[in-house]
Amino acid sequence: MVDITVLRLGHRIGRDSRITTHCGLVARSFGASKIIITGDREDNTIESLKKTSSRWGGDFTVEYIKNWKKAIKPYIDTSVIVHLTMYGLNLPTVIDKIKDSIKLKGSMLIVIGSQKVPGEMYDLADFNVAVGNSPHSEVSALALTLDRIFSGKQLEKEFSGANIRVIPQAKGKSTIIPED
Amino acid sequence: MVDITVLRLGHRIGRDSRITTHCGLVARSFGASKIIITGDREDNTIESLKKTSSRWGGDFTVEYIKNWKKAIKPYIDTSVIVHLTMYGLNLPTVIDKIKDSIKLKGSMLIVIGSQKVPGEMYDLADFNVAVGNSPHSEVSALALTLDRIFSGKQLEKEFSGANIRVIPQAKGKSTIIPED
Repeated sequence: MVDITVLRLGHRIGRDSRITTHCGLVARSFGASKIIITGDREDNTIESLKKTSSRWGGDFTVEYIKNWKKAIKPYIDTSVIVHLTMYGLNLPTVIDKIKDSIKLKGSMLIVIGSQKVPGEMYDLADFNVAVGNSPHSEVSALALTLDRIFSGKQLEKEFSGANIRVIPQAKGKSTIIPED
Repeated sequence: MVDITVLRLGHRIGRDSRITTHCGLVARSFGASKIIITGDREDNTIESLKKTSSRWGGDFTVEYIKNWKKAIKPYIDTSVIVHLTMYGLNLPTVIDKIKDSIKLKGSMLIVIGSQKVPGEMYDLADFNVAVGNSPHSEVSALALTLDRIFSGKQLEKEFSGANIRVIPQAKGKSTIIPED
């Protein structure tokens, strides 16, 4: 399975806390292996993501690197870099090319913005991709992109080493403490 | 095309502002016709969604009704009510049944929570649906659900009467003022 890292550009304390948290949860839940948060350091956000990952299982990791260019450097040449922006080419028109590139490189970096994205980012990306050319959310853009990469299979992903697991129910709530 | 309303349960001022805004933008961008916000009244959130809709086109509407039970009442019996919760049945296992119900009723209400969802909601829903049984975000859950209902076609939706439109680009940004 392709190894995917999500890079959150320019996190801002307070204003971005919940959106960055939701991006991290989507990244983990939809099959990425890591999120790197750049911009302001906000320990609560990082710790909350780490706690959720540890409780719900899997081996998702959370990293903080202040400078986004430093964070992106190891991925240039080694990974397919996809920058999600509503100004990019629409996902349905480029998804096949992205999948072909992933086959060649084996790993992928998905970049999502928060505050104004530096112009340089558009040049560093192999693909600037819009999930529909209308404003919505980095959370949904990330979710749809991961969904297309994993062809929907991420919804059936099971996480090993969890301390809690949901038993799907038509009505009400049910969880267990797994024995694996 | 099926008429879809999104109902946001229990909005809280400040804490939920950006997430509710993102939910509204996803609803509009992914083909729903309306969002109803319940809970606290936050005029900034409502106005910001209305402004975006008017600028980017289409006929998406934003409504506020304090009491969620009052808001849901007109949809009982007339619409398929889908409540998104990670405790529900996983989307891939129920999507065909949901689509069959939509064919019968012609309209749909998608309910998304914020603060703790009242137990009654689970009984009022025709379907309690999880988008993967692991925590992520109401923004991504809504996006994936709308994506499955519209079979991805929502990403190519064009909005009439817009004051601005993106011209998709491989690099950089380009917008026009449409003449239609």
